[in-house]
Amino acid sequence: MSRGSVVVLGVDGYLGWATALHLSAHGHQVLGIDSLVRRRWDRECGTRSLIPIRSMPQRIKLWQKLTGRTIAWQRLDLCNAAAVTEMVRQVRPAALIHFAEQRSAPFSMIDRPHAVMTQVNNLVGTLNLLFALRDHAPNAHLIKLGTMGEYGTPNIDIEEGFLTISHNGRQDRLPFPMQPGSFYHLSKLHDSHNIQFAGRVWGLRATDLHQGVVYGSQTDEVAIHPGLATRFDYDAIWGTVLNRFCVQAALGLPLTVYGKGGQTRGFLDIRDTVACVRLALDNPPAQGEYRVFNQFTEQFSVKALAGKVREARAAHGLETEIVHLANPRVEREAHYYNAKHQKLLDLGLQPHLLGDTLIESVIELVQRYAGRVDPVELEQPNVDWRRGGTAGWTKPLPRPVVVMSGARRERRAAAAERLRAGIDQRR
Amino acid sequence: MSRGSVVVLGVDGYLGWATALHLSAHGHQVLGIDSLVRRRWDRECGTRSLIPIRSMPQRIKLWQKLTGRTIAWQRLDLCNAAAVTEMVRQVRPAALIHFAEQRSAPFSMIDRPHAVMTQVNNLVGTLNLLFALRDHAPNAHLIKLGTMGEYGTPNIDIEEGFLTISHNGRQDRLPFPMQPGSFYHLSKLHDSHNIQFAGRVWGLRATDLHQGVVYGSQTDEVAIHPGLATRFDYDAIWGTVLNRFCVQAALGLPLTVYGKGGQTRGFLDIRDTVACVRLALDNPPAQGEYRVFNQFTEQFSVKALAGKVREARAAHGLETEIVHLANPRVEREAHYYNAKHQKLLDLGLQPHLLGDTLIESVIELVQRYAGRVDPVELEQPNVDWRRGGTAGWTKPLPRPVVVMSGARRERRAAAAERLRAGIDQRR
Repeated sequence: MSRGSVVVLGVDGYLGWATALHLSAHGHQVLGIDSLVRRRWDRECGTRSLIPIRSMPQRIKLWQKLTGRTIAWQRLDLCNAAAVTEMVRQVRPAALIHFAEQRSAPFSMIDRPHAVMTQVNNLVGTLNLLFALRDHAPNAHLIKLGTMGEYGTPNIDIEEGFLTISHNGRQDRLPFPMQPGSFYHLSKLHDSHNIQFAGRVWGLRATDLHQGVVYGSQTDEVAIHPGLATRFDYDAIWGTVLNRFCVQAALGLPLTVYGKGGQTRGFLDIRDTVACVRLALDNPPAQGEYRVFNQFTEQFSVKALAGKVREARAAHGLETEIVHLANPRVEREAHYYNAKHQKLLDLGLQPHLLGDTLIESVIELVQRYAGRVDPVELEQPNVDWRRGGTAGWTKPLPRPVVVMSGARRERRAAAAERLRAGIDQRR
Repeated sequence: MSRGSVVVLGVDGYLGWATALHLSAHGHQVLGIDSLVRRRWDRECGTRSLIPIRSMPQRIKLWQKLTGRTIAWQRLDLCNAAAVTEMVRQVRPAALIHFAEQRSAPFSMIDRPHAVMTQVNNLVGTLNLLFALRDHAPNAHLIKLGTMGEYGTPNIDIEEGFLTISHNGRQDRLPFPMQPGSFYHLSKLHDSHNIQFAGRVWGLRATDLHQGVVYGSQTDEVAIHPGLATRFDYDAIWGTVLNRFCVQAALGLPLTVYGKGGQTRGFLDIRDTVACVRLALDNPPAQGEYRVFNQFTEQFSVKALAGKVREARAAHGLETEIVHLANPRVEREAHYYNAKHQKLLDLGLQPHLLGDTLIESVIELVQRYAGRVDPVELEQPNVDWRRGGTAGWTKPLPRPVVVMSGARRERRAAAAERLRAGIDQRR
């Protein structure tokens, strides 16, 4: 079966890599693109994937060896307009899956340079892509990773992108009013508006996937071989909350809930992420259409999520403590939340709902790599929405998140000591 | 009376300069800031203000000589974060009026570099300012020039920034859904979201003035002396529509309406712009509050506006032709439009409504400078929303808006010839 080629932008990331494998496994001709900047940001933050990941050439070579399928690979920064234009002109892709953005809310809140970099990086990359599509692939389907965080937490039901509003006896279907909660989330909203506009004036077609918080790491394809692993982040900058809880549970540490924990969000299994992208790809919108899918399967409060992890552990006779930390974010900690997520179900999504089995399997995976856990990363969130980011929550510094230094190594050793002592006490 | 100092950002522009004079005349201690980039963009586009304007030092010196009042002046680019931070740290202003953005929709639609530059310039400048305020002047009142164009043309009444929405039996007051119509208008919307967020997390206070289309050039202060003139643009890139119609009428040329002319927008006299800014300044929002004022006094369709100019001329026995050009923009040409603009009236705004006298006075002003009119600029719009900008509406070029070249000078001479012939015929 010959299909047009699909470009996965941000292929070196947590979801980009898993998506590329999934689409390749389903017969799509995939070109993976990445600037590899995420690995540089790891070095800046002193963070790393819990699960070791191979280099792009190694991963692709292994995929080919194991499956006979080829994923093309090109190192390219979306902010390099000439290179983006040339890539689109040469490839003329049928579709592009766009993960290639700075995707951490805390990273964007560290300080001014990180906020500016996040918004400029994300907006310029997407604008470069939109112009390249206008000029060289106007029929291509742009599948853009947005976030449920664009909506914020309104006191009304959240619809999928648009809302029919009646006001003073008149009616219109309008973009859903948005209230994002970080400079990162704002960058995704800015993108959404730019993409919607490009659809209107240039007739481009796009699917904006407003994705919830992803957990897990094992898709069917990733699970084939350890060398195909995708990254797994658990630290306070890059980790998503359930993955962090699983790491804490695996080490017998308390689960750390920010504030009251009533913050409710949409969640989904990484296996559903890759399936959703494929469903969007296989069911493209009309030319000129801008559509939004809310991409998650269940909603939980953070507190309820911690409770689920505790229950899964209790089934094995293990006790798990839940502690509440001062909330580093500015957000409602108790609020109404009811977000629709029907469109992907209508296209055939079969959700993997969160159960004890998944939680256990993630915890087992973590235990396999427990020696790689950096205990400093589990102590406290290190970026505060009001004051910015410093390792110690003290006064703002020019470059608060620091590359591993001697001092940091000492703190790390001390934290490891405390961690071991804590684990001993709990056992 | 001692008041805290007020920083006018973008003081070299059409409205920035008039506002600085107005606030200075009303006893405010004003610091004017500008990068002077607008004068560079004029050189790039081959455009210029119809009314000659003096350099910043000359204008300020003249203002002091005529009134005894001092306006401080500093050349500074808002995209220079260190300089912005240092300025805010040293001045600790009571308020800042932020005009310092790329403010032309056609300029932003020329090509990718102009779109990217517009969004990056506007967002980064505003982000730099927000962080500087957080760190060094958290009580300052930020008065930001936004645009009515953020709303687009919804089929419901436009409220001032927020809308109470009932949906599935629940209710919330949410940001009004926005549908901007150019990369420039989008940049203003992105700013609005960033500023609103900064209010929520850092407790900053801001007034977002969603301004309509401004016309006229003579405020009480500008009118004191020709050397105090503010710029007056009539070309297709920088000119606002009524000012352009007045130039066309003054030269006996047809008024050029884009498309059907049913496009309806809010309009206001430049004297009301400066009054609105002063009213916002004198009535600051609470700490942490983000508020929106719709800043215009009347709404007209472009067609109706052309009709008003024609009527004003007819009163003097002069005939004015109205021609419809293919619309270079992508916008609804017949639509519902009813935008609220009550809040500034409630604060005491006394509107200068559009009458024949104003139109006549603008036309008289234009006639004084008729020799400076560049006829090429009145021929055709030179930026198309679908294809981007070229002088000749042909295929996209790398740098479509060109600095005056030999070829352009020849075209200009030929156009001047046609113009003279046309004027002769009409007289």
